[in-house]
Amino acid sequence: MIRIDLLTLFPQMCETVLKESIIGRARERGLVRINCRNIRDYTQDKHRRVDDTPYGGGGGMVMQARPIYDSYKALCQDVGCPPHLIYMTPQGKTLTQERALELSRMENIAILCGHYEGVDQRLIDEIVDEEISIGDFVLTGGELPALVLTDAITRLLPGVLAASESYENESHFSFLLEHPHYTKPDTWLGKEVPQVLLSGHHANIENWRREQSLVRTFLRRPDMLEKANLSEKDKLFLKNLARGQEP
Amino acid sequence: MIRIDLLTLFPQMCETVLKESIIGRARERGLVRINCRNIRDYTQDKHRRVDDTPYGGGGGMVMQARPIYDSYKALCQDVGCPPHLIYMTPQGKTLTQERALELSRMENIAILCGHYEGVDQRLIDEIVDEEISIGDFVLTGGELPALVLTDAITRLLPGVLAASESYENESHFSFLLEHPHYTKPDTWLGKEVPQVLLSGHHANIENWRREQSLVRTFLRRPDMLEKANLSEKDKLFLKNLARGQEP
Repeated sequence: MIRIDLLTLFPQMCETVLKESIIGRARERGLVRINCRNIRDYTQDKHRRVDDTPYGGGGGMVMQARPIYDSYKALCQDVGCPPHLIYMTPQGKTLTQERALELSRMENIAILCGHYEGVDQRLIDEIVDEEISIGDFVLTGGELPALVLTDAITRLLPGVLAASESYENESHFSFLLEHPHYTKPDTWLGKEVPQVLLSGHHANIENWRREQSLVRTFLRRPDMLEKANLSEKDKLFLKNLARGQEP
Repeated sequence: MIRIDLLTLFPQMCETVLKESIIGRARERGLVRINCRNIRDYTQDKHRRVDDTPYGGGGGMVMQARPIYDSYKALCQDVGCPPHLIYMTPQGKTLTQERALELSRMENIAILCGHYEGVDQRLIDEIVDEEISIGDFVLTGGELPALVLTDAITRLLPGVLAASESYENESHFSFLLEHPHYTKPDTWLGKEVPQVLLSGHHANIENWRREQSLVRTFLRRPDMLEKANLSEKDKLFLKNLARGQEP
């Protein structure tokens, strides 16, 4: 079973998120082991400080190497071997679904959440195996990115999602955006569900859904189509779609 | 003051995250107003259900239009006008720092968190103003993305970060990755802080930091350099860097 450890200054907050919903149930069912470790428990400062001003001046505070290093060493001892340590930072490689899938096959992962201006570079050079960014935007800390990564990994573990929720048709797994979804009632605010979905004709439904996926991806994320696994029929459909768009 | 409302099935979990750290202090100081509204409070189902099976078959459940619509209508009444409603979905436009900055200048934002397979498309067509994705990966729900967006927006609001933490030098604001950071002690595990940072020579320090930013961005995210605001000196430095890389 995969074990994921978060090294953070906000273990309670992370715990609250990780005990909810699908991730919470996966933990209860023993499908994943997730722990949150408080970096502040490893400071030797009498005021329990874990940060200090940056060398060279400038604003903000920098997290010191030692408390993080000591929390990591204690974690290694608990685990019995050094886990794959990921540091969440805008400097990292952008997270993708493929990388989440690869990580979900590892045995021991630890995720370091930075705060303030960042973490002493020497600590990163010494123990960090991989730097991951969740996107081109800036957040107040690494906790939300670490929770995002933990969620993305956990839902891919065997048994976490019911077979019926299997992830194979999902956006970013097949490199196509998903088709639209509809549920009861069949008329809402005067808007009807597309007739084909009520037809009971499975082949037509599958065909409609596929075309909707292709249209959406074409209009919203044409960059994804390059990686998508397309049939000859899909390619013809897209070709006609592109032609219809021309003046 | 900006007001941000989350429409979610997990208001307590969202609250716990939003009362921590920088966002929590910004709320206490009255710099932002953030509320979490439980969509489930607006269901008229006697079992308090908010989802149902998808028309056309297939796995998973779909969130019904009506409870979301009713929670949104109640929100509009509270706010006094319809807020800009954002739906967090992998189908949306990928979040960028520029978009976070634009959103931080709005007055009323609401963020809809989906769960299960998604939300009835008619609800999206009827009330959603914008669809945002935080990246090309799949999560168990829209809460973490909504919290990410709320965090990215809130930290940009006037007064939330101290002037010394001003965001102008940050990654993804200037389209350059940040230089490395170092703090005390000056020697840790035998590793020393770069001498220039201890020199007290401000121009040299600034120069070193700029070059470190350029090197990092060149090596890790060359795609960002196109948008970066580069001086003639920067361009020359990058040109030499690229030349050094050639065989």
